[in-house]
Amino acid sequence: MVLLPEKHSPQAGWLTAARPWLWRRRVIIIMTSRIKPQIVIDMLLLRHCPRLSRLCYGSHRAAVPAVIASARFSRDSDQSHVRWSRRWTHATAGLLAGTGAVLAYALHHHQAEQADVSLPSPPSPPPSSPSSWSVFSQEEVSRHRSLEDRVWVTFKGGVYDITEFVSMHPGGDRIMLAAGGAVEPFWALYAVHNQEHVLEMLAEYKVGELRAEDQKKQSLNPSDPFSADPDRHPVLHINNMKPFNAEPPPQILTESYVTPNVFFFKRNHLPVPQVDPATYKLHVEIQGPSGSARRGIVSLSLDDLKNKFPKRTVTATLQCAGNRRSDMHNAKPVKGLNWGIGAIGNASWSGASLRDVLLAAGYAPDDALWARHVQFEGLDQDVGGTTYGASIPLRKALSEDGDCLLAYEMNGEELPADHGFPVRVVVPGTVGARNVKWLGKIVVSDVESSSHWQQNDYKGFSPSTDWDTVDYKTAPAIQELPIQSAITVPADGAKVDRSDEELTLKGYAWSGGGREVVRVDVSVDGGKTWRIAKLKGDEAGSPPPGQAWAWKLWELTVPLPADTQQLELVCKAVDSSYNMQPDAVLPIWNLRGVLSNAWHRVKVTIKDDQDE
Amino acid sequence: MVLLPEKHSPQAGWLTAARPWLWRRRVIIIMTSRIKPQIVIDMLLLRHCPRLSRLCYGSHRAAVPAVIASARFSRDSDQSHVRWSRRWTHATAGLLAGTGAVLAYALHHHQAEQADVSLPSPPSPPPSSPSSWSVFSQEEVSRHRSLEDRVWVTFKGGVYDITEFVSMHPGGDRIMLAAGGAVEPFWALYAVHNQEHVLEMLAEYKVGELRAEDQKKQSLNPSDPFSADPDRHPVLHINNMKPFNAEPPPQILTESYVTPNVFFFKRNHLPVPQVDPATYKLHVEIQGPSGSARRGIVSLSLDDLKNKFPKRTVTATLQCAGNRRSDMHNAKPVKGLNWGIGAIGNASWSGASLRDVLLAAGYAPDDALWARHVQFEGLDQDVGGTTYGASIPLRKALSEDGDCLLAYEMNGEELPADHGFPVRVVVPGTVGARNVKWLGKIVVSDVESSSHWQQNDYKGFSPSTDWDTVDYKTAPAIQELPIQSAITVPADGAKVDRSDEELTLKGYAWSGGGREVVRVDVSVDGGKTWRIAKLKGDEAGSPPPGQAWAWKLWELTVPLPADTQQLELVCKAVDSSYNMQPDAVLPIWNLRGVLSNAWHRVKVTIKDDQDE
Repeated sequence: MVLLPEKHSPQAGWLTAARPWLWRRRVIIIMTSRIKPQIVIDMLLLRHCPRLSRLCYGSHRAAVPAVIASARFSRDSDQSHVRWSRRWTHATAGLLAGTGAVLAYALHHHQAEQADVSLPSPPSPPPSSPSSWSVFSQEEVSRHRSLEDRVWVTFKGGVYDITEFVSMHPGGDRIMLAAGGAVEPFWALYAVHNQEHVLEMLAEYKVGELRAEDQKKQSLNPSDPFSADPDRHPVLHINNMKPFNAEPPPQILTESYVTPNVFFFKRNHLPVPQVDPATYKLHVEIQGPSGSARRGIVSLSLDDLKNKFPKRTVTATLQCAGNRRSDMHNAKPVKGLNWGIGAIGNASWSGASLRDVLLAAGYAPDDALWARHVQFEGLDQDVGGTTYGASIPLRKALSEDGDCLLAYEMNGEELPADHGFPVRVVVPGTVGARNVKWLGKIVVSDVESSSHWQQNDYKGFSPSTDWDTVDYKTAPAIQELPIQSAITVPADGAKVDRSDEELTLKGYAWSGGGREVVRVDVSVDGGKTWRIAKLKGDEAGSPPPGQAWAWKLWELTVPLPADTQQLELVCKAVDSSYNMQPDAVLPIWNLRGVLSNAWHRVKVTIKDDQDE
Repeated sequence: MVLLPEKHSPQAGWLTAARPWLWRRRVIIIMTSRIKPQIVIDMLLLRHCPRLSRLCYGSHRAAVPAVIASARFSRDSDQSHVRWSRRWTHATAGLLAGTGAVLAYALHHHQAEQADVSLPSPPSPPPSSPSSWSVFSQEEVSRHRSLEDRVWVTFKGGVYDITEFVSMHPGGDRIMLAAGGAVEPFWALYAVHNQEHVLEMLAEYKVGELRAEDQKKQSLNPSDPFSADPDRHPVLHINNMKPFNAEPPPQILTESYVTPNVFFFKRNHLPVPQVDPATYKLHVEIQGPSGSARRGIVSLSLDDLKNKFPKRTVTATLQCAGNRRSDMHNAKPVKGLNWGIGAIGNASWSGASLRDVLLAAGYAPDDALWARHVQFEGLDQDVGGTTYGASIPLRKALSEDGDCLLAYEMNGEELPADHGFPVRVVVPGTVGARNVKWLGKIVVSDVESSSHWQQNDYKGFSPSTDWDTVDYKTAPAIQELPIQSAITVPADGAKVDRSDEELTLKGYAWSGGGREVVRVDVSVDGGKTWRIAKLKGDEAGSPPPGQAWAWKLWELTVPLPADTQQLELVCKAVDSSYNMQPDAVLPIWNLRGVLSNAWHRVKVTIKDDQDE
């Protein structure tokens, strides 16, 4: 056994140098007041000692065994994006299966067993009498998002300072995603938290309670049309505040096949409308050919939609036309929100079939003689009263295989305000922009929607078309989207350790029009050579041909090449029509930066052991 | 007026040097025994003389005015493909509209007007008495395919030596495509030939008659299973003789929206079967789930198909999965027939609807519970009796919008032997391999066809998959094909004249699955900058969304860049799902060389005037 005080400099790499000597010890304890990146590396190295049976470190407040890999979280001051270490990934892979939390709990509750270590006692738990709790606003909670500022989270109205627990978290630094906000959405992702002892652990970190009104809507500010917008999870990366446009950190996308509602990208064109579900009405009409009288005007309440039509559920991926616009913008500037790779998500949608509703509203076979489009109008509107609108081909709306829904549930929950409460259209396989939210009106027509977003936006153009020459009439409105894929893990610019020996890549792949993703090729040398990733689709099995509405997640573990320190990771997907992603960005560049589906590229650096 | 004997060397460019002097003359006649490329250039230059009213040249046998641009045809001895000059293209553009033939005819008949030119008389026409005609075999005719070997063609049993006419042909060197074979298919392409005076002109070149038996099938050779194969047009480029696989010269593809049957690529897997239409039977059966009894066994005669079901017509492009394989093979060797860009064609197919036939055979809605595929079996078989087979998804076969046909006509004619006489399946939007010819059997099944071509061929793989690692079970059978386009004119390696000042590119573009081609981008600098080509679709108008089964032809005229002598022409198409072609070949390389749809690239050289 050996007890190491915290005297080393992380840069000096003393522990690495001392490895041969340490190699022969059975128990090693490292004393430190702060969890530093280097210590985690050292501990991971020491875990390979052939005789080692226990490896611990002690904080200034507690000595906690930590054979689990600990977290590293750093925020680079010179860039706005949080950068994550990938180091823990492999070390914690097994723990995530469920044993990790149990282990952490056991370790936490059995500090007494550390009889051979002389350390200060842990602090007393905070008072447990509810009357004594401080009350914090959400804003105050949101300021606690780092080890330096303390790490606070909320859970069912309670506020918890979990700073001390961060290093013990079996899931590693994922816990920092919840910093400053609610843990519930993460716990929904990781079923391992659904255990009583997890709540017991959390209770010990309670520091106060969340102000009651922060769980309700903020008081309205009549001068700001966006004042009624709902609260959003702080982990979202905001591309625009008003209207709200935000995406989750990429790695969250590949944590679960279905994207939790709070993390699902939000793409609003206008303020979120306040809709009273009790008085909500959806108007449906069959508009005859231009000039003829309208008919089949039907008004449906939310209850009508829920009770008069069979409830259908479709798992479908929605992607914004601007997803990955930043890749295009970086190649040559475009106009549009600077989306990363997170303007995509996969959800299980439930509602009435659009086809059923159209037939109930009086759509008849004869209408096929003139009808071509189904227009949708949202209840969201600008200060001038212009509402959001879009349309889809009639065939898609009417097809039994088209699976279009008037959805009132998302992942088993009531449709969230940001996703169109109380009803949105879900048009599987079709660009997000046609999946109109806060749906107010459906019109069967011989013409497309006349809205700005159908006529003069969401269209693709040649790289040779600029703002002086663009004629929106010359291009079709985007409907089905092309094949797409991206690498979510590791992040661009990540550093990996040579000693890891291998690297696991994760990502998503999806194609529009119900075309199933059949292969994802991955390269670690910029596209010179390729490997085939493992695909993970719906556990329920393969969809029928032409109805593959949901993405596939993919994963691939590759050995780290010995002869290079820079890796250019690339992925490209293939769909069931054998469409492939274009290689480069510039040849598909377009002035609005839509349809950005060139090969996704991520650069990572391999750090040799002697680098530190 | 000036009379120039043929004394100049083409390399010396004397005519160019003498231009200022010649510039002032009103009539110029050039004496030459052979039509040489330089003379054509010189003549084109001289046509710009401000005072010139007539420009003629004289052969050793005839003096023929030729204000029309004359042909150049060269065969490079070091390469197997015929290379065509593009020089005549612009000069003859107007003539092709119909005036050209008239002009040529007029010129031909009014040699007497050349009274101011002293030249030998034209030869006497060959004897017109039928009894005196020599009889030639098709093989003998086929040997006459160049100016050196004389140019022979056949028309309605007659054999014609048109060598002298080649330089007068208003359509330029296109006439050489007919050399050694029949002119009828070309005349079907160019309606301008449907005039009496054209026949009168042709009659003057008659040299004999085609052996009667050469218009019938060759006598059967029982030792050769391919001995009953039909005759094919000699213009086809043969990739394999037995089984027959051949494609037309690229430029023919863009001459007409619908590809004439004789020029439509032939892709046979086995000998062409001899089917007696009188006794032909198509078997249709609904095969229950594995193990259950078969039912709905129906046997339909050709008359049944023609008379018991409505005749439907669909214009659809068929493309071989191996089209453009040579591009892939050139990047890295693959196994397969070395198709150029001509394994694609567009035809108007007529027949019974597959859906109608399946319903008539007893397909019922309940069958959707187990049925997934429709299998097709051809009557073509190998020596062991194995027949060609393939299958398509049931949904495609049953969909009213799928437009699948049991076709017995192709472009208004009885289905040709090479294209499946008497009946083939046409599966619009789907790879050629599933459009089974000489159809003998249709089976509704819960499984795909077990044939080699469905299970172990016609599938796409990663570039990392080689013959040691390939597992055909891991990839789906190709059905819908991805977006494709190619440049048919100019040909790779062509030379264009600087003095042309501009260059016209032509090509085709098509996508599978009924996705309409919405844009073709063209580059003359290897893909750095792009222009948008003009698309030419069906004159009947745009198809409904998802039913764009036919290709679009495209064309673009660009100014010749002043600063370069080498142009790299590139095209890439975009379909209605905004799928685009991949940039490069190697990243989509696959061991069988299928799905070769990277940007098509053609290199041309600009020849400056002083080059010659």
